[in-house]
Amino acid sequence: MTKNKEFSEWYLKILEDAEIIDSRYPVKGMPVYRRWGLFMIREIQRCLEKMLENAGHEPTLFPLLIPDNILRKETKHIAGFEDEVFWVTNAGDNRLDRKLALRPTSETSIYEMFRIWIRSHGDLPLKVHQSCAVYRYETKHTRPLIRGREFLWNEGHSAHRDMEDAKRNIEEIKEIYGRLISDILCIPFIVDRRPEWDRFPGAEDTFAFDTLMPNGKTLQIATVHNLAQNFSRVFGIRFENESGNHEYVYQTSYGPSFGRLLAAIISIHGDERGLILPPRVAPLQVIIVPIVFKEFEKKEILKYAEDVKERLMLFGIRTEIDESEEHPGAKYYHWEMKGIPVRIEIGPRDLKDKKITVVRRDTGKRFEIGLENVEKEIKRILDEISDNLRETAEKKFKERFFRVEKLEDIKGYVGKGIIITGWCGKKECAERIEEYADILSVNDREGICSVCGNPGKEIRVAKTY
Amino acid sequence: MTKNKEFSEWYLKILEDAEIIDSRYPVKGMPVYRRWGLFMIREIQRCLEKMLENAGHEPTLFPLLIPDNILRKETKHIAGFEDEVFWVTNAGDNRLDRKLALRPTSETSIYEMFRIWIRSHGDLPLKVHQSCAVYRYETKHTRPLIRGREFLWNEGHSAHRDMEDAKRNIEEIKEIYGRLISDILCIPFIVDRRPEWDRFPGAEDTFAFDTLMPNGKTLQIATVHNLAQNFSRVFGIRFENESGNHEYVYQTSYGPSFGRLLAAIISIHGDERGLILPPRVAPLQVIIVPIVFKEFEKKEILKYAEDVKERLMLFGIRTEIDESEEHPGAKYYHWEMKGIPVRIEIGPRDLKDKKITVVRRDTGKRFEIGLENVEKEIKRILDEISDNLRETAEKKFKERFFRVEKLEDIKGYVGKGIIITGWCGKKECAERIEEYADILSVNDREGICSVCGNPGKEIRVAKTY
Repeated sequence: MTKNKEFSEWYLKILEDAEIIDSRYPVKGMPVYRRWGLFMIREIQRCLEKMLENAGHEPTLFPLLIPDNILRKETKHIAGFEDEVFWVTNAGDNRLDRKLALRPTSETSIYEMFRIWIRSHGDLPLKVHQSCAVYRYETKHTRPLIRGREFLWNEGHSAHRDMEDAKRNIEEIKEIYGRLISDILCIPFIVDRRPEWDRFPGAEDTFAFDTLMPNGKTLQIATVHNLAQNFSRVFGIRFENESGNHEYVYQTSYGPSFGRLLAAIISIHGDERGLILPPRVAPLQVIIVPIVFKEFEKKEILKYAEDVKERLMLFGIRTEIDESEEHPGAKYYHWEMKGIPVRIEIGPRDLKDKKITVVRRDTGKRFEIGLENVEKEIKRILDEISDNLRETAEKKFKERFFRVEKLEDIKGYVGKGIIITGWCGKKECAERIEEYADILSVNDREGICSVCGNPGKEIRVAKTY
Repeated sequence: MTKNKEFSEWYLKILEDAEIIDSRYPVKGMPVYRRWGLFMIREIQRCLEKMLENAGHEPTLFPLLIPDNILRKETKHIAGFEDEVFWVTNAGDNRLDRKLALRPTSETSIYEMFRIWIRSHGDLPLKVHQSCAVYRYETKHTRPLIRGREFLWNEGHSAHRDMEDAKRNIEEIKEIYGRLISDILCIPFIVDRRPEWDRFPGAEDTFAFDTLMPNGKTLQIATVHNLAQNFSRVFGIRFENESGNHEYVYQTSYGPSFGRLLAAIISIHGDERGLILPPRVAPLQVIIVPIVFKEFEKKEILKYAEDVKERLMLFGIRTEIDESEEHPGAKYYHWEMKGIPVRIEIGPRDLKDKKITVVRRDTGKRFEIGLENVEKEIKRILDEISDNLRETAEKKFKERFFRVEKLEDIKGYVGKGIIITGWCGKKECAERIEEYADILSVNDREGICSVCGNPGKEIRVAKTY
């Protein structure tokens, strides 16, 4: 199956073949996460949590359920989520006095506690994060890992004494997300400042991390919001400053979707043979395939393979030996589909020459390395694979930006990538543009409106998921 | 506050002081997990998941929501949970066609997929686990970490070709849970075979891990169930055996409550000063307090402390230096309350003599050790602390078993611990006994009924949470 031509079919097939998720669970938009997918999601989570905690975030876990009246406190917020909220109305035989929402996001539940926790300037900044599932009754067509009704993410929330400190946090989070997405997951992205009508409900500003899928649609993988004092005023989150006055805090909130990050990994790096996993999050980084021609060699070859495995494991490299009864060819096929970055083949000649044969999943290159320093060599190869995946993806990404001057020319590039053009700021011109594709961002740079020709700002436009 | 005399007050105070959880969230029985508590729950989870995966369990994550008709398939099961289920009935403005349950436990959702996954004897045994939150509308008095409406646990589920293999799995799980509870958490327990009326709804046999709290009540911290073919028959989970015939699988399910394990750790090991944490799950295992008398020594002492910290960290020991401006005495007080197993004090004399001063949280003993092999020494001390906590708790546990022959003598021991007596098997005699306390287990051993004097089985009885 050609990945780029039949992307949608390719994507669904690989989710099933590699046992990432199982979509046959009988609630729409709620799949079962299986070993291969769950490991990667948990590994992405661990990497992110570590970075956030190093930056002073406290790990927390808030309840799933949010009382009706609390979810409704910020009017724009509830207006934005109202249609998507799952409501618990009954328990056992009882109708609840107050209905409870499954969290669609946790601003309201967390800020209810921020009001209690924050007393003085000494309590600020307060930064917390949680990894959890959120629930949204999507009415659009659901798509596994991309648009579901239960999705896994990490959400961060902060409170600051002034706007300046809130903005400093936004920059720090952008940097952390950038490191996660590019350094660790090897996914290219742009940060788009969303137009006003596409901001998070209740936010004063929304920055989105967008990447580009093989079908030319952008995928929003993380967002960062400046909430200003919108929530603190309605939740009454105040602190006493040095002069003894009480002020409302400034807040920010942010989150990446683990499912969408995984969808991007699968879609951007994968090929006709299946997954190609970024080494840092691959459930297995090395698979060892013993090549046994004659039965009497078997024990010695397996012993040799065990030694290599043990050395790699001690060095922190996730390694397994495939000792099954399959043909080596079938094993290669299987583990390539699963996306393991490095395959090591060990046959009688390797044993004799004290070497191993290495095959890279990303380039398909096959070469031999000596046993001396094998762990460092494999580590170096894994790093090279990361770099290669990142560079290859970056290159393809950059090739799919198109600069367009006139509205009628936009059409030709829709679905091919990201279109850079101009917009004057008037609503009617935006509507004309959005007949073709969505406005991803309104940039600081000047631009000429592609509709009316008046001066305005540069914008980015694309078909989006 | 005296822990044993005012246990309930002591418990609530330490949960707050040590920032384990915050119970002020405005939904009953649903607290916010904070850093100190969440770390331990996640660490318990990691230890358990590793053991389960080594025993061949696949990590999975199933959806939170279970359709009404699926939850209702096994009649005894739904009868047992019916009163406790939270129901999602609406989404946005819509009333759902079919109401959805928040999982009170996941037998039904998981077995719906087992039917799809299991085809032949080659697919068996199938063992999966998931760590998640479950939801039960408790009508009894809720108690933080002990009886809540949202609680964190790990649940395991298996399918086998015959009863023998199912029973083998039950023994393996008992052994794994035993290692977690005793070796890692240093908590004493007994495995109680629950009487028929106290089995898990839908199970043919239930084994419970019970420990004993300071107030003499037992706390059920984990359960293991033999489901026989009760679920496989209604869910239609069949496999083709070697002869080509289709048979229903035999199943088991099991789970410990992370919240209750944490409650047991806090309650059983703690003392008047606060927490005493088992080293394996303590968020910090070592706290270093620099003792600076003169300002000019400060830099050198901190450098020395940093060196010690780095050596311990490289050895995998979770260590921090308390560099705050507080008095050393205040620091000792704080970190003792938080339960850190080992405190290291570093003053000018330690520097001069190339040693450190060590204080154990469990015994309060203070002694000096040389810098040479400091990491191995501290590791050894942490292991000694584990052993001491386990032995001390075991000793106290064993002292609270009371053998009683007549019903009228039971009364005197109720609320003091676990009572061993006899029961003939007749319902009316059990009811008489349960007027005083609950029957925890019906043992294989013979016993004389404490009510009617007829021969029967030995039983264990206690006040329970």
